[in-house]
Amino acid sequence: MNILITAGGTKERIDSVRSITNHATGTLGSKIADAFAARPEVSHIVYLCGENAVRPNTKLAEIHPIFGTRELEDSLKQLTQKYTFDAVIHSMAVSDYRVRSVTTESAIAQAVQNAETEEEITTALRQTQSLEQDGKISSTKDDLVIMLEQTPKIIGMLRTLIPNAVIVGFKLLDGVSTKELIDTAHRLLVKNDCDYVFANDLQSVESAKHCGYLVDAEAKAEPYDGKEQIASGIAAVVCERLKK
Amino acid sequence: MNILITAGGTKERIDSVRSITNHATGTLGSKIADAFAARPEVSHIVYLCGENAVRPNTKLAEIHPIFGTRELEDSLKQLTQKYTFDAVIHSMAVSDYRVRSVTTESAIAQAVQNAETEEEITTALRQTQSLEQDGKISSTKDDLVIMLEQTPKIIGMLRTLIPNAVIVGFKLLDGVSTKELIDTAHRLLVKNDCDYVFANDLQSVESAKHCGYLVDAEAKAEPYDGKEQIASGIAAVVCERLKK
Repeated sequence: MNILITAGGTKERIDSVRSITNHATGTLGSKIADAFAARPEVSHIVYLCGENAVRPNTKLAEIHPIFGTRELEDSLKQLTQKYTFDAVIHSMAVSDYRVRSVTTESAIAQAVQNAETEEEITTALRQTQSLEQDGKISSTKDDLVIMLEQTPKIIGMLRTLIPNAVIVGFKLLDGVSTKELIDTAHRLLVKNDCDYVFANDLQSVESAKHCGYLVDAEAKAEPYDGKEQIASGIAAVVCERLKK
Repeated sequence: MNILITAGGTKERIDSVRSITNHATGTLGSKIADAFAARPEVSHIVYLCGENAVRPNTKLAEIHPIFGTRELEDSLKQLTQKYTFDAVIHSMAVSDYRVRSVTTESAIAQAVQNAETEEEITTALRQTQSLEQDGKISSTKDDLVIMLEQTPKIIGMLRTLIPNAVIVGFKLLDGVSTKELIDTAHRLLVKNDCDYVFANDLQSVESAKHCGYLVDAEAKAEPYDGKEQIASGIAAVVCERLKK
């Protein structure tokens, strides 16, 4: 079996020295890679990860570090053309937003001054000229305003890129009830035609005991306790499914 | 001798999963710590660094990881009360800006709609209510706008905190002439009452050969070539100065 695992987080460039990052470390992703590597039926793993993500111990994994969402999309397209994956475990925390432009409060004030309706103001906002982005933005400005736009949804591309693979998505929420967590994960599964979505809450990720639920197409939720159990549990469920 | 070295970069929190970071790795800072540790006159090193910064090899260094500018300031105050440092090498890339609020284009458009002058618009902009920041900002918004304010200048606090220390500041510019690089470093030295400022250009930091100039109070600039030479050069100059 040939397994693709994404792990860690993407970064989005603000200028030549600054980025927007998320706090994902890749710890769980690296354990998932090791859990798959420990199974005799797995012969090859591709580990597509954020630059600073924790790497798995296994020698079976081919490591592909990427910077941002754009590189993630490009790498996914290349890798799925090169290899036929039996399963994709998409644990990477992908930036929801990327930088459209960087400006200042006074530039915005000037730009919107003659706009009247909300629509005109929004248009003017979007046309505010971005500060130099090829280099480092000077630190002499009193303030900065970063305007962000949505990134393309990577999870929504997986089924098209790898039609026959078992796909496991991930959903992280913050401080919600178990019911809301599982419902949200199931909606994500249906929307993106995943086979499973692992649902977890930030409160548990940051505590010593990382727990969560592997939600399937019937919205059945299997609880797992601790990163080791999550990793080996996902590997077992996916491999069993592939053997059928 | 007791040496304080800052290294790596700070992060500024956007919400519970996202931050603004800079790309500084702490590689040079870790080599500077090792270069000081290799000198017999140095008995203790404090290494105050960004969470993910490269750590020095020396066992002499007491490691203090911090997250953002606020924690850096707090740690500096505590450490300079606890220890008497003979020198401070401030190589850390400190965020110039931190998050004031996170909002959306439509919230801005609504907020500024009744403002007329540039001043009124700026005031309205600053009063735009921030999205929930205790938790994770939902990824369902079409766009986000992050408003940033300047952070306090840490380099400007060093002379007050440690009046008698030899202070080495750092200045990173991007794609400027050698003259402008040295002039800017010297202005920084004068403004913040440093003894030296190490001036380097991003173009060289990112290439294999990191080079730069150690600028002194007379604007004399000593060139160094490669991270090892920069590290041992700074350690030698500072220790010689302290012996006088």
